[in-house]
Amino acid sequence: MTAEIICVGTELLLGDILNTNARFLARRLAALGFDVLHQQVVGDNPARLEAAVRQAMERSDLLVFSGGLGPTADDLTKETVARCFGDEMRYEPAVMESIRAFFASTGRTTPANNEKQAMVPAKGGWFENPNGTAPAVWFEARGRRAVLLPGPPGELEPLWKSAVEPFLQKGQRRVLKSLVLGLCGIGESHAEELLGHLFRNENPTAAVYAKPAELTIRITAAAPDEAQALAACRDYAQNFYRLAGQYIYGEGEQGLEQALVEALAQKGLTLATAESCTGGLVSQRITAVPGASEVFGFGFVTYANEAKQKLLGVGVDTLAKHGAVSPQVAAAMAAGAARAAGADVAVALTGIAGPGGGTPEKPVGLVWLGAARGDQVFVKRLDIGRRDRATIRRAASSNALDAARRLVLGLPIPGALRAQDIPE
Amino acid sequence: MTAEIICVGTELLLGDILNTNARFLARRLAALGFDVLHQQVVGDNPARLEAAVRQAMERSDLLVFSGGLGPTADDLTKETVARCFGDEMRYEPAVMESIRAFFASTGRTTPANNEKQAMVPAKGGWFENPNGTAPAVWFEARGRRAVLLPGPPGELEPLWKSAVEPFLQKGQRRVLKSLVLGLCGIGESHAEELLGHLFRNENPTAAVYAKPAELTIRITAAAPDEAQALAACRDYAQNFYRLAGQYIYGEGEQGLEQALVEALAQKGLTLATAESCTGGLVSQRITAVPGASEVFGFGFVTYANEAKQKLLGVGVDTLAKHGAVSPQVAAAMAAGAARAAGADVAVALTGIAGPGGGTPEKPVGLVWLGAARGDQVFVKRLDIGRRDRATIRRAASSNALDAARRLVLGLPIPGALRAQDIPE
Repeated sequence: MTAEIICVGTELLLGDILNTNARFLARRLAALGFDVLHQQVVGDNPARLEAAVRQAMERSDLLVFSGGLGPTADDLTKETVARCFGDEMRYEPAVMESIRAFFASTGRTTPANNEKQAMVPAKGGWFENPNGTAPAVWFEARGRRAVLLPGPPGELEPLWKSAVEPFLQKGQRRVLKSLVLGLCGIGESHAEELLGHLFRNENPTAAVYAKPAELTIRITAAAPDEAQALAACRDYAQNFYRLAGQYIYGEGEQGLEQALVEALAQKGLTLATAESCTGGLVSQRITAVPGASEVFGFGFVTYANEAKQKLLGVGVDTLAKHGAVSPQVAAAMAAGAARAAGADVAVALTGIAGPGGGTPEKPVGLVWLGAARGDQVFVKRLDIGRRDRATIRRAASSNALDAARRLVLGLPIPGALRAQDIPE
Repeated sequence: MTAEIICVGTELLLGDILNTNARFLARRLAALGFDVLHQQVVGDNPARLEAAVRQAMERSDLLVFSGGLGPTADDLTKETVARCFGDEMRYEPAVMESIRAFFASTGRTTPANNEKQAMVPAKGGWFENPNGTAPAVWFEARGRRAVLLPGPPGELEPLWKSAVEPFLQKGQRRVLKSLVLGLCGIGESHAEELLGHLFRNENPTAAVYAKPAELTIRITAAAPDEAQALAACRDYAQNFYRLAGQYIYGEGEQGLEQALVEALAQKGLTLATAESCTGGLVSQRITAVPGASEVFGFGFVTYANEAKQKLLGVGVDTLAKHGAVSPQVAAAMAAGAARAAGADVAVALTGIAGPGGGTPEKPVGLVWLGAARGDQVFVKRLDIGRRDRATIRRAASSNALDAARRLVLGLPIPGALRAQDIPE
């Protein structure tokens, strides 16, 4: 079954708002087993909207609309789709009651133009909106279905989960479930070499997505029920664990920061950070995880050399001899952060985030990572390359989170050297 | 002139990533005076992509593509659009050189399949990508134009600003110029009350965009040449300065962080940060500005009470008596950060970012801001409200950046109290 997402609203065409509904609907439709082959955005213009609906009816089994269900005259989605599906709108007193109750709960009286929102399909149906005034409605004709949802995500998402999804799943013989793997330390092209054959499978399917210094693999299986689909995902995931297990940091949509916080909590260890080029990005990512305070107490943003000396005890000589961007300084920063914070583990970053400041010996994108646990101190050279400042910082921070996680779990840090092996 | 945005990528159809490119391109095209009437998303499927291109050529003057310029076999955007525009691809050694240099900067050799990215239009043209390997390319036929950009936002956005925008503006009879005002400290509904009439103007137009604790106003004027358009923007901006001047922190797309760094540099002052609930977000935003090292050397992420004591000298009694989220602690953190860093100015944040940890007296969304300059210490209560953790942290960080900027420039901080007026 194919599906098409049609988002209605001039504010999307003008770029005034980000289209988070398209992403939400795309994910949920994929999880239900629909092939979403097209997404469209059209404005509040009846002729262009009608053309979009008629085209979508030619090529897609299910049409999902968001937006254009408001009370004002330019909200025309319902009327336009009704015409295309050969349906008509009728006044539904039960919806009007619900709208009046909604306004009463906010201490307001119902504006007259809200009667428009109480119109529902004569042949199709509707779902009550617990978080707003516009009900969701559906139409059906010639084996095609359309579902129309209100635009605000706070209304669309609960309506989708509670009403539309059960409606669409009724009578389906197959369900889809996904399992997500998070990887760090392996590049996209290396992953393609190592795992490429696993991405060309029918059921389960597997797909890879790249972020700076991170990869996500989504495995999706179709089966008669949820338990069987999930079991098939788990089985298939074993292939990835076998070939690339050392790069997999966790399952689910959790992200590296959460995997690290969980590893620390599980081992009962605490972490400190020392950041130069990332300027607080690592600590910011860690503290974005609710509950991070159990394992993280101290972060040092040592942007200036003076701060590296004063807060972390990095030697003046070390800085003078090797420069701030050096393995010696990265090691001293990590060891110093652990000591100053009284933390079990510490990670440090010092590098050239650009756009200026690069030299032939130390180009933009060169970052040294330090990682300390007790007496063990490691350093790793990151060559992130000639990218924009934000990407370099993001990639460096991901490497630091992964290195910390590895130290916590007693895993090797690929490509790292022991600090004692670097010349003083 | 009409424009259409076509985003290519199966990951968008699956909802794996949020389509931020569509929003960026929509805004920039609107600012250039294009009417964007359609947006489309299609997967990496040549037949469906070709159908989308042919349809767009029927109804739009300019086609802007993002994505599908990668080195792998399923990246087919260039080839497909070339066919529709009656053009062909040719190998361009200069692009290959730049790709090799890019890989060399990351310490890797260039994979063979990257030769595909060195193919450029025979009749159309190309723009070098300073942040990646895929150049932007353009095609032209029968009065229609297509511009193809690489998908990663860190590559697409700089390419658009530096190369595509000047290219599209060449030869236009009417040029559009925009002037962006950044505001902090005024809410969206208050702005609508105060400034609403200014957003209903024909030329220049003005539009407002809301971010947590920040507003952006974009003024766009059409005129025969750039100088006249910019003068019209400047004139119109005076209305905003007259009515809301105290909230305007700067002009351009620079953001609060850049306005702060510039103010510090202009006054020859240095800044330190002390962060609890934001965990490094403030220092991360400051150091995202190239050149921040001139004015920022020390950041303290004091997530634990022990860190507040040890690094900032916050008194054990103060913490015990008032709790970490209190004006007394915010004031002590700011004063302590300035002292420990030897900085002229310091800002501090301590609050409840949620989702847990709220109480009736100290609910989620309550944040205390401290700001110190010499002997002057101020505190401000922020009631950010029951929002998600990321929004609370972002809004708190924006308030801190703005308070620091005001202290640096000798401006009052609206709603702030002097620390000496709070009970001990």
